[in-house]
Amino acid sequence: MGPRTAPDPAIEPSGVPLPDQPHHDQGPLYTVGPTGPGADALLRVWVPTAYPVRTIALRAVRDGEISTAVLEPEGESGPSRDAGVMARNRPRNAPGTSDSAGPSGTWWSVTLTAWNPVTPYRFCVLAEAGARTPDGIEIPAYAWLTAAGLVPWDVADATDFHLVTHPGAPDWVNDAVVYQIFPDRFARGSAAPVDEEERPAPPLLPQWAVPMRWDEEPAVRGDLAGRQLFGGDLDGIREHLDHVASLGANTVYLTPVFPAGSVHRYDASTFDRVDPLLGGDEALVRLSRALHERGMRLVLDLTTNHTGATHEWFRAAQADPAAPEAGFYVFLDHPDRYVSWLDVPSLPTLDLRSPTLRARLTRGPGSVVGRYLDAPFAADGWRIDVANMTGRRGEVDVTHEVAREIRATMRRVDAGTGRESWLVAEHGHDASGDLSGDGWHGTMNYAGFTRPLWAWLGDPRSTLNWLGLPMTLPNLGGGAVSRTLREYNAHLPWSSRIHSQNQLSSHDTPRTRTVVGERGRQLTAIAALATLPGVPTIFAGDELGAEGLTGEHSRTPMPWDAIATGDPTRIDAEVLSVTRDLMGLRHELPALRRGGLRWLHTGEDALVFVRTHPDGDTVIHLARSAHDEIELDLGCLPGHVAPQLLRDIGAAHASVTGTTVHLTAQGPGATLIAAPSASR
Amino acid sequence: MGPRTAPDPAIEPSGVPLPDQPHHDQGPLYTVGPTGPGADALLRVWVPTAYPVRTIALRAVRDGEISTAVLEPEGESGPSRDAGVMARNRPRNAPGTSDSAGPSGTWWSVTLTAWNPVTPYRFCVLAEAGARTPDGIEIPAYAWLTAAGLVPWDVADATDFHLVTHPGAPDWVNDAVVYQIFPDRFARGSAAPVDEEERPAPPLLPQWAVPMRWDEEPAVRGDLAGRQLFGGDLDGIREHLDHVASLGANTVYLTPVFPAGSVHRYDASTFDRVDPLLGGDEALVRLSRALHERGMRLVLDLTTNHTGATHEWFRAAQADPAAPEAGFYVFLDHPDRYVSWLDVPSLPTLDLRSPTLRARLTRGPGSVVGRYLDAPFAADGWRIDVANMTGRRGEVDVTHEVAREIRATMRRVDAGTGRESWLVAEHGHDASGDLSGDGWHGTMNYAGFTRPLWAWLGDPRSTLNWLGLPMTLPNLGGGAVSRTLREYNAHLPWSSRIHSQNQLSSHDTPRTRTVVGERGRQLTAIAALATLPGVPTIFAGDELGAEGLTGEHSRTPMPWDAIATGDPTRIDAEVLSVTRDLMGLRHELPALRRGGLRWLHTGEDALVFVRTHPDGDTVIHLARSAHDEIELDLGCLPGHVAPQLLRDIGAAHASVTGTTVHLTAQGPGATLIAAPSASR
Repeated sequence: MGPRTAPDPAIEPSGVPLPDQPHHDQGPLYTVGPTGPGADALLRVWVPTAYPVRTIALRAVRDGEISTAVLEPEGESGPSRDAGVMARNRPRNAPGTSDSAGPSGTWWSVTLTAWNPVTPYRFCVLAEAGARTPDGIEIPAYAWLTAAGLVPWDVADATDFHLVTHPGAPDWVNDAVVYQIFPDRFARGSAAPVDEEERPAPPLLPQWAVPMRWDEEPAVRGDLAGRQLFGGDLDGIREHLDHVASLGANTVYLTPVFPAGSVHRYDASTFDRVDPLLGGDEALVRLSRALHERGMRLVLDLTTNHTGATHEWFRAAQADPAAPEAGFYVFLDHPDRYVSWLDVPSLPTLDLRSPTLRARLTRGPGSVVGRYLDAPFAADGWRIDVANMTGRRGEVDVTHEVAREIRATMRRVDAGTGRESWLVAEHGHDASGDLSGDGWHGTMNYAGFTRPLWAWLGDPRSTLNWLGLPMTLPNLGGGAVSRTLREYNAHLPWSSRIHSQNQLSSHDTPRTRTVVGERGRQLTAIAALATLPGVPTIFAGDELGAEGLTGEHSRTPMPWDAIATGDPTRIDAEVLSVTRDLMGLRHELPALRRGGLRWLHTGEDALVFVRTHPDGDTVIHLARSAHDEIELDLGCLPGHVAPQLLRDIGAAHASVTGTTVHLTAQGPGATLIAAPSASR
Repeated sequence: MGPRTAPDPAIEPSGVPLPDQPHHDQGPLYTVGPTGPGADALLRVWVPTAYPVRTIALRAVRDGEISTAVLEPEGESGPSRDAGVMARNRPRNAPGTSDSAGPSGTWWSVTLTAWNPVTPYRFCVLAEAGARTPDGIEIPAYAWLTAAGLVPWDVADATDFHLVTHPGAPDWVNDAVVYQIFPDRFARGSAAPVDEEERPAPPLLPQWAVPMRWDEEPAVRGDLAGRQLFGGDLDGIREHLDHVASLGANTVYLTPVFPAGSVHRYDASTFDRVDPLLGGDEALVRLSRALHERGMRLVLDLTTNHTGATHEWFRAAQADPAAPEAGFYVFLDHPDRYVSWLDVPSLPTLDLRSPTLRARLTRGPGSVVGRYLDAPFAADGWRIDVANMTGRRGEVDVTHEVAREIRATMRRVDAGTGRESWLVAEHGHDASGDLSGDGWHGTMNYAGFTRPLWAWLGDPRSTLNWLGLPMTLPNLGGGAVSRTLREYNAHLPWSSRIHSQNQLSSHDTPRTRTVVGERGRQLTAIAALATLPGVPTIFAGDELGAEGLTGEHSRTPMPWDAIATGDPTRIDAEVLSVTRDLMGLRHELPALRRGGLRWLHTGEDALVFVRTHPDGDTVIHLARSAHDEIELDLGCLPGHVAPQLLRDIGAAHASVTGTTVHLTAQGPGATLIAAPSASR
């Protein structure tokens, strides 16, 4: 066997280039409805003329059994079947408003009843044997179109598209840009002492705390990291909302605000009140009001998996094995041996089988979950810490039950407040098994966003560890990374994906800038954050180019003086302005907020995709370094497309000739192109 | 963009040929233990010398969180860690009995605690950048080894290996070869009337029945198909067990034996007794005893999804909406509008939410499930009809609950009888979501066995429909088909896969011979049946080369006179002798019954894999048509392998030179090669 190289992952399994492939997604241009359980959805497949199909069939699972139906080309008056029914749900410029056959393809469609809460489906795309594209590329006679793409062999159901009728996340989540704040490190309120000597002292200063100056660097790791108190507070946040809003962020997510035995506060000592160090309940109410007055929202952080060992429940449990709270934890040998998170004794694990615990923590408006959503705190959602482990231990697994209960509680409170709240689960790896739609609205999509981008954009010289494995960041090409972006995310229902948080970094990770190692690649990363499906979530400080080697080290205090002066030695003004610009663009373009997703090019150093929307598509070109010119004819998109350049970021550049775009890069960067269509 | 062809699916995503890749499977050579919940398993990875690894890490999910560990090369005295603990569970010639470094590779190992009932895991295989095989093939610096193979990008957990501690199927299932009998079509007992004129008449002949002569051809489709009564009975089966045993089959699976409104009896009119047309309860008891006397076993078929409209429960339900049985069904408008299987009115769907129904049908030793496993019937298992739909309708989904309940009932009865029973679910497509191990032991693996083989071996001129889609059988190459065999089956826990039925055809499908269109490809198919993981299940008549266009048409009466005379115009003696030979070989070789699976070659017209076992591996080469010689050095297998030719079947041929095998074919066929090892 002679030498050969690995197949280029940028070459599609079908061999057919992405722009020539039939496409379906669950954005509003391709999937209309369902409006609720039992309602019909209109499913549309766009088939470029380059791909001569013989026929297309739908394969769906109904009550556990397969059902099939044949798609039909849409006629002059729109979808050929049930057009009247569907017209009611049809958005502007959506199916049926013009010719089915655009200049370069044909719409095929079919209706599917959302009979079960989750209905998996995919398409079988058939061509005549020996058919070829105009470029001479062989078309597979038999191929499946799933959420992971077009594959010319039989595949498992795991990457099917899913119609989900569970009530989804609130509509506002589609438009959200989240700003994540670690309260101790964001800002000290103006009422706080200016002089370092006046910072909190005992008894207000907890025993565990080590007071820090605002301009000191947080520890990289070790016990000290959790004890370094910089003194940020909730009034400090409230007083800096102009900065938050200037980024296009409209939702503030706070890591925990309950009193605790550390500065990260994931070891709560009570859930009954806000930490006085942060200003107490009143400060949270003030912040919430200030946000709502600006039309912004507030998401809080709840640890359902464990409490601190200093928690009043745990103290009661240790003091008396007959106390109701003793059943909230798992004692191996009362009072000193007990189950704790990853065997860290300061974090005793909650036993969520306990009905009494559930009544206090998760069930009903009076529970912790319910209370902070209601007046006077009026939070707009919860991020659930360690959701992936919540309720799981050995043979016990009540995670889904707990998730559904939390959501039910939130619905009940929402019914009273008239607001709608969002429920996001922390999950560090493959969350797909926990996202069927009836529990968590979404997750922190580390597996389907953060890690693939780090693998692609990471500094090749980086010594950062990767996933706890004996290695530093891998340097994967765009082909390999796009496989993960496509295949992993195909395991999530679309509604769960778009209502998940996309983060380039968080309080638990190295900083984006440290990962990518340079400004240029950070700009590329920001463009990905602003444009890939999911809720862009900016960890406060990332917008300044802040650095950090670990989660602890990344909890950098915000340099307000440098922000005010634009000091280029301490903040990266280009990163800041690109963040503002692209988040602003996201608010302008429905496709970026609510559109579907179609991949167009997956090269080693360039990824190109389009967010699809009835009001016009947006094409995004991400470059991690210089690459050869990519020429793409956007005539492959439905309708009569008239591309217009929106942005050149960093060292990337786009130009337009007719329907063709030319994408180049002399280094990292991104370009954005509007692709409005005269008809759809 | 110039013309190009699709990437050859036979080229691995990593680019590294299969024999050079690191390997792990869940056969007893690679996975030892766990012995139960909380116990450790020893996981071993064999790394051929051609693949210069830097290190290998384990990634497992524990309580919903990732844990990692580094593997170590096994030392002289066996696995370097926990060797004492694991030695107790170690089979003969298993890990630790000789050098870790064989002539051509190294064992790496690690222990993993089976902490949760299902523990997903996979390996991260790291190499130095730029490393190459001796043939100059680039080794990926970063790759994941999952049950679907080696992939150089991040993948979802869906194809992870799984440690499962739920009690698995009985041990005898590993050694089972099943013979499926459709009772009306197998044989008339000697006490039955010989003269056609004396066949059952009213009142014994049901109104629906159309009596048929034994040598008539069943209808292809239509209402008549279900009414053609040929008069086979249970004594007829008992009297022909020599034939069954001659095939190496040791388990008889009967489609339903309850009285019904059709010849297939999936529309039972009672579950309280065996159909008198088949000989009644006594005949089933006689058959069961005769089987057990031979050391053979009996599996029955239960319809839990629906009954016949003539069922006594349904009649009671229709007669009185207040009857307990009225809650067994879902009436849309009592008594005439009700939910039925695929809207067929003769098959009203059971509502398995009803506790009263569950007590009668599935729960406890007195239920239908329990009663037939106990004396005097003493069946050894159930095949559950339409298991994929059982308990599923709209928002209702109690399938897993019902499966667990049936299994619990079986365990309770087993505790009394001292026997162990097997629970198999009918499932026509992707069963992976229903096979977590605590319910069904396995499935009818249409998706992971039957269909891929049909797609590869199907007659290119066939007009048979494919999956209800607007197409005939696809003709996929071995590369594409092996992707399905590997990737789809990777979604099933190994224990569920090996305790599932592999069938080339059934009473619900066209006959194997009709699908493949010729003797040669049928021989290839039989070799696949005898050697791929899973329980070989022969639909009675397939061993004769019988033909049939549909499930109904395939219910061919057995031509006993032609079997007796070996009449070559009516039976295919070569198919019969190869079936006997290969099933016999399966009983001889532990690797075929209990071994793991490693793929070695996936060409268009040839597939080669090895079943791995401490007592010696077996290499299988399947050819669908003539192909170029394949040269494989079995030195890639662990230990000092000394290959020996076992069988040449059809037009395929193997020869051995040292550790190298040369595989050729002038047409369809198969070869089998023993690969015993002097050390492991």
